[in-house]
Amino acid sequence: MKDKNIDLKCISLRLANVCLLSLMFILVLQAQPQRPRFRNIVSPGVLPDNKVTFRVYSKEAASISVSGDWSVTREATQMFKNDSSVWSATIGPLEPDRYHYTFTIDGIRATDPSNPITVRDITTHASVVLVPGEVSELYTVQNVPHGSIHKIWYNSPTMKLYRRMVIYTPPGYDDSQDKYPVLYLQHGGSVDEDAWTELGRAAQIADNLIARGKAKPLIIVMPNGNTNEAAALTEIPRAAGSQGFPPGPTTGNNYEASVVKDIMPYVEAHYRVLPGPENSAIAGLSMGGGQAYNVGLRNTDKFAWIGVFSSGLFGGVQGGYGNFDPENQIPGLLSNSSSFNKSLRLLYISCGEQDPRIEYTKKAAILFKENGLNNVFTGFPGQHEWRVWRKALADFLPRLFK
Amino acid sequence: MKDKNIDLKCISLRLANVCLLSLMFILVLQAQPQRPRFRNIVSPGVLPDNKVTFRVYSKEAASISVSGDWSVTREATQMFKNDSSVWSATIGPLEPDRYHYTFTIDGIRATDPSNPITVRDITTHASVVLVPGEVSELYTVQNVPHGSIHKIWYNSPTMKLYRRMVIYTPPGYDDSQDKYPVLYLQHGGSVDEDAWTELGRAAQIADNLIARGKAKPLIIVMPNGNTNEAAALTEIPRAAGSQGFPPGPTTGNNYEASVVKDIMPYVEAHYRVLPGPENSAIAGLSMGGGQAYNVGLRNTDKFAWIGVFSSGLFGGVQGGYGNFDPENQIPGLLSNSSSFNKSLRLLYISCGEQDPRIEYTKKAAILFKENGLNNVFTGFPGQHEWRVWRKALADFLPRLFK
Repeated sequence: MKDKNIDLKCISLRLANVCLLSLMFILVLQAQPQRPRFRNIVSPGVLPDNKVTFRVYSKEAASISVSGDWSVTREATQMFKNDSSVWSATIGPLEPDRYHYTFTIDGIRATDPSNPITVRDITTHASVVLVPGEVSELYTVQNVPHGSIHKIWYNSPTMKLYRRMVIYTPPGYDDSQDKYPVLYLQHGGSVDEDAWTELGRAAQIADNLIARGKAKPLIIVMPNGNTNEAAALTEIPRAAGSQGFPPGPTTGNNYEASVVKDIMPYVEAHYRVLPGPENSAIAGLSMGGGQAYNVGLRNTDKFAWIGVFSSGLFGGVQGGYGNFDPENQIPGLLSNSSSFNKSLRLLYISCGEQDPRIEYTKKAAILFKENGLNNVFTGFPGQHEWRVWRKALADFLPRLFK
Repeated sequence: MKDKNIDLKCISLRLANVCLLSLMFILVLQAQPQRPRFRNIVSPGVLPDNKVTFRVYSKEAASISVSGDWSVTREATQMFKNDSSVWSATIGPLEPDRYHYTFTIDGIRATDPSNPITVRDITTHASVVLVPGEVSELYTVQNVPHGSIHKIWYNSPTMKLYRRMVIYTPPGYDDSQDKYPVLYLQHGGSVDEDAWTELGRAAQIADNLIARGKAKPLIIVMPNGNTNEAAALTEIPRAAGSQGFPPGPTTGNNYEASVVKDIMPYVEAHYRVLPGPENSAIAGLSMGGGQAYNVGLRNTDKFAWIGVFSSGLFGGVQGGYGNFDPENQIPGLLSNSSSFNKSLRLLYISCGEQDPRIEYTKKAAILFKENGLNNVFTGFPGQHEWRVWRKALADFLPRLFK
C-alpha cells in the first residue's frame, strides 16, 4: 500500500508539474505584453575564428555602433542595417578573453538587448562576451569544486560606519575545520566591494587555480575601499547625478586603520584564518594598489605578501604625482631594504602595457631593485582596465603562501 | 620618537592619499575616452508629488518611450525632445513602491543610461526607480542591523547536479550560537536562485521586518527551482538565443526529492537550524508557488508553514489547467482536512488582483475553507509581477514561527 501511495503521489505530482511547466511557459510569454519581441536575434555571436558578430534589430535608428575593451581606445565600429532591419558588425578575430562592450544607439549608450550577461562598472553597464580559450576558462564556472561568496556587514569603529564587504571562502571550507591563509583584495577608485567578484571574476579565478593545484586554497576578503561609503551603490544609492566617485573624500589615512583595526579582527573572529604575516597578503588595483602598497609596507608585521596592480602611486597619471618619493612614504624602504626583504615574501608589481602608468611603474620596480628591495614586475597587454586586472590576479594568486 | 614617527607616517600617508585621490579622479574620467558624456542628465527624477520624470539625451533618435510596472499593461509613454536634445516624459503620481522600467529607443529596449541601478529579470534588464513611502522603505537598506547573503554550491545527488543556492542569515547570526527557523523560498519559472534577493529584495525585507520586531529572525534558503539548471545564467550561461526557460524540462517530480533529500540536509548540516516542522516554512511564487504547495502539503511532517504566491496551480492561465483537482494531487486535503489543520500552522495563499489567476485562486481558497481546510488569502494590487511578490513576502514573513 505504501509503495502504491507513493507511486500515485509521484504520478500526480508529475502530471501537476507538466501542467505547471506548460502554463508557466505560456504565462512568461504573456506576462510582459509590451516587451519588444526578440526576433531570434543572436548577439553576440562568436565565430570559430574568434571573430564576433553583434546584432540588434531596429527599423528606425539612424546610427548604431559597438565599442568594447578589445580596443584600448574603445574605438567604435559602425553597425549596418540589412533588409530585415537587423543591424550588425563583425569585429576581430579577438584574443581569447572576457570582453565588455556597449552599443551606441543614436548617441545613447546601451547594453546589447539580446545578451543577458551584463556587468556594472561604477555607474554604467556593459554587456559581456567571452571569446573561448585558456584564459577565458579561468574566468568561467568550470566543472570543479566552487568556493562560497559571503556578502556581510561589519562595524568599522575607525570609519564610524556600518560597512559591507564580500568574502570568498575556498572549496571545502564549509566541510572542514582547516584554517586558511587570507588575501585582502582592494578594488579601484569609484567601484566598490562587488567589483572583484563581478568585474574581476575573483571567485572563478580562485576556484579554477585551486582546482588545477596552481593556487593554495585561500580566503579572499574584498572590502569597500571608498572611505566615505558604507556599501556599493546598489545597496545604498549615491546622490542623483553622482557618476564617478561617491561624494566627499574617498580615501584617507583611516583606510589603513580600518584594515588593521576593523577588518582583520572581524575576519579573524569569524573565519578560520591561519595566523601571522606569512599567511596574510594584501593587494589591490589602481587606488586599491596604492592602498595595498601603503597598508602592506607600513605593516610588514601583518603582511608578507603585497600585490600592487596598476597603481598611480609611481606616476604617469595626468595632473598627478610626478614626485614619487618612496623613502618619504615608507621610511627605510630603500635605505634599509634588507629589513623589508627579511619581512616580505613577495612584493609584486604589475601594470597594463598600454596604461600611462607603465613607464613610471617599471622605473619604480627598477629603483627598488637598484636599492636592493626584492620585487617582481609583470606587464599585461591592455590599459587601465579589467582585462589587465583579472590577469594580474590570476598571475598573483599562484605566487602566494608557498 | 615613536609618536613623531607615527605622526610623520600619518602625514605622508595623508599626502599620498590626497594625491592618489586627485589622480584617480582624473584617471577615471580619462580612462574611458569613448563613453558618451553624461551632460548632467538626472534620470529618473522623483518629484515631491511622486510624479517621476525620465530623461535621456539624443540628437538623432526618431522615437523614445518609457514603460514600466507602474502600468499593469506596461503601456508605453512617449518621451519628447526639447531644444537641447533632451528627451523627457513625466508620469504619475505613483504609489510608493520600487518600480522597474525600460526605455524603447527607436524600437530597441534599453535601460536608462543615467541610472546605475538595474535588475536582471530572466534574460532582460530593467532600470529601477524607488518612489519613497512606507512600503519602499521595506525594500531599501535602512539604518538597522543587516543579515548576510551566502552564495554557495551544494551537491544534489537527486538531480545529479552540483548546484548553487543563495542563503540569507539574519542579523546577529554570526555573533551568536542561537538556532533559527528556516524559510525555503522558491522563485518563479525561468528566473533563478538570485531572483528573490535581487528582484525580490528578500534580504532588505527580512532585515527591516526583523528590526521592527514584526518578523522573527530566520534563515531564508533560496534554491534554484529549475530542475535542469545548476545555477543562474550569470554563472552558467544558457545556450545562445535561449530567452525564456532554460532548455529542457524545468520542473519535475525530483524537485520535491531534491528539497527534502539534498537541500534540507545540507542546510541542517551547515547552518544552525531549529528542528521540526514548526520551525520550517516553504513558500514560492508562480512556478515556485506550485512547488511550495506540492512539496509542503506532501511533507507536513517537515513543514508547518506554507506560502503559495501567484501560483497557476488553481487555474486562470491561458491554455492550462481548467481542472484543478486538489484531492487527487494531495490525497485527503479536502476529505481529511482536519489532519492537515492539525499539522499546518499556516496555509497562506496570495495573488495579484490584476493577475488572471486571481479568480481561480480565490475559488480554491474558498473551496478549501468550505472543506474545513484553514487558510489565509490575501490579494495585492498588480498582475504577475515583482511588485506583488515583494508585498506577499512582506505580508508572509510576520506570520511565521509565532
